[in-house]
Amino acid sequence: MNEFDLISRLTRSLPTSEAVVVGAGDDCAVLDFGLPDRLLLFKTDAVVEGIHFTAATEPQKIGRKALARCLSDIAAMAGTPGAALVTIALPRNFDPGFVEEVYAGMNELARRHGVAIVGGETTTNPGGMLLSVALLGFVPRGKGVLRSGAKAGDAIFVTGELGGSLSGKHLEFEPRLAEARWLAQHFQVHAMIDISDGLAGDLRHILTASRVGAELRSPSIPISREARLAAKAGSAAKPALLAALTDGEDFELLFTVAARDAVPLLDAWRKQFPQVPLTCIGKIREGDGVIIRDKHGARPLNVHGYVHFS
Amino acid sequence: MNEFDLISRLTRSLPTSEAVVVGAGDDCAVLDFGLPDRLLLFKTDAVVEGIHFTAATEPQKIGRKALARCLSDIAAMAGTPGAALVTIALPRNFDPGFVEEVYAGMNELARRHGVAIVGGETTTNPGGMLLSVALLGFVPRGKGVLRSGAKAGDAIFVTGELGGSLSGKHLEFEPRLAEARWLAQHFQVHAMIDISDGLAGDLRHILTASRVGAELRSPSIPISREARLAAKAGSAAKPALLAALTDGEDFELLFTVAARDAVPLLDAWRKQFPQVPLTCIGKIREGDGVIIRDKHGARPLNVHGYVHFS
Repeated sequence: MNEFDLISRLTRSLPTSEAVVVGAGDDCAVLDFGLPDRLLLFKTDAVVEGIHFTAATEPQKIGRKALARCLSDIAAMAGTPGAALVTIALPRNFDPGFVEEVYAGMNELARRHGVAIVGGETTTNPGGMLLSVALLGFVPRGKGVLRSGAKAGDAIFVTGELGGSLSGKHLEFEPRLAEARWLAQHFQVHAMIDISDGLAGDLRHILTASRVGAELRSPSIPISREARLAAKAGSAAKPALLAALTDGEDFELLFTVAARDAVPLLDAWRKQFPQVPLTCIGKIREGDGVIIRDKHGARPLNVHGYVHFS
Repeated sequence: MNEFDLISRLTRSLPTSEAVVVGAGDDCAVLDFGLPDRLLLFKTDAVVEGIHFTAATEPQKIGRKALARCLSDIAAMAGTPGAALVTIALPRNFDPGFVEEVYAGMNELARRHGVAIVGGETTTNPGGMLLSVALLGFVPRGKGVLRSGAKAGDAIFVTGELGGSLSGKHLEFEPRLAEARWLAQHFQVHAMIDISDGLAGDLRHILTASRVGAELRSPSIPISREARLAAKAGSAAKPALLAALTDGEDFELLFTVAARDAVPLLDAWRKQFPQVPLTCIGKIREGDGVIIRDKHGARPLNVHGYVHFS
């Protein structure tokens, strides 16, 4: 059983209430608690030693990453983060100085994005360090973007470049909060997700939620320098395109807009965010599944994104 | 370094914002996001295999406990819970049926208290199972109760009976949500906390936050049947009074009201909650520290509550 099968079993019959606009299954939960102009976003995410970082990772980067992952989920809804709680589970022989450095990395990123850290918990974890962040945020009513709104004919866009994140970006990425808010303010974004499981896997999350399929243009997919270098490094390496499609932890935005908005969006984006690549990589189509097209023709894309537990 | 020393180091310079009414250091964070009549409560809490439950604990009780602990913190602020996110970290060889039972126990308690479970995360934890709950709640403006409002002369009350929770209550306790809300609606509660670290330890949290001391009347402290039985069981057992003062995980309410409210409170309580003991165990005094008084006189109380990591 992989992570998604388990989640599917667990989320079949969760308790709900009138306040729940979106429950389990999107980047954040969306709650309506009666704020006149805003909905509340609610998200939790954990990083675990040996999986999301190693014993050799700089502590500031561990703390930074734990918060940045949650911020990226708030970005995927076009939201603004507000307050966080931090649960830190430590092995019995922990070094307090190390833990302070973890917090220093988290605090710096929190300050930069206006996030208050309002408490949390420390506990013991015999297996190693685990850091879980719970984050509250907001989105103006009518401006939140879900995974479920993609429509046949939409243009599919991705920010940044993909693949090879484990060579460093996964510890240093900048959550695309400003970019996502700008997008939702200026364009009708139909569906959006942040790429944490790899382009192929996260595109499928949009497709499943929206009940549509997609066609990707292989030569358009923006491949990172790190993925290209790794592909050249030796026979054991992934081809660069495969890395861009399946490597986890890119934390870029993947979204769709109506085809007629594609060119105006690209023009406006380049003026607004000249340092951040934005690429149209394909289109949404009727049906299901992903077709990938290159100069040799079109074929079904069978690779998957990163799946936990698998 | 124990848990409280570490927390003190970590919370010295946390990022804050205008929305933060109470940050780290009370039972819940209190946030003002502009709801006309309510403040938001925000809390996270984790249970870890080998610490808060064992490999032999029934899975439904593990899930129930993880949520109940957070609900008890919402009770300690006289709040009402609203929505929860659940992070579950699993060993690699987990049994999906076991995890479903964990959720079943949590879901049943959530439904009973009107809590929506709106998502969360699954991840791998090499050391064993860890379950972290993040909970949002509300409290009417002006009705929230902090740890910091105890005043010299106040009567100190405790609900239920104390000690011996590990014999079963820690997995089955009912969070005192209804009782706490009733208290805050009908009386001016000066300070409140839920007893998770033991009476002696949690009373000290109130005293430190309120900058006062306390005098306990030893014969008044309500000792549970379990603590009395354990004390008789053998020479290695704790005396029953010591168990009531220091055992963790009672999850009863400890609070103070003005002395003039003590008798009216006891009368009204017995009508409202005839099944739930309420006991006046002493009074708040100027100064600091805890004095315990019995028929032999008064002496400083030197025992501490349960301290993690120690």
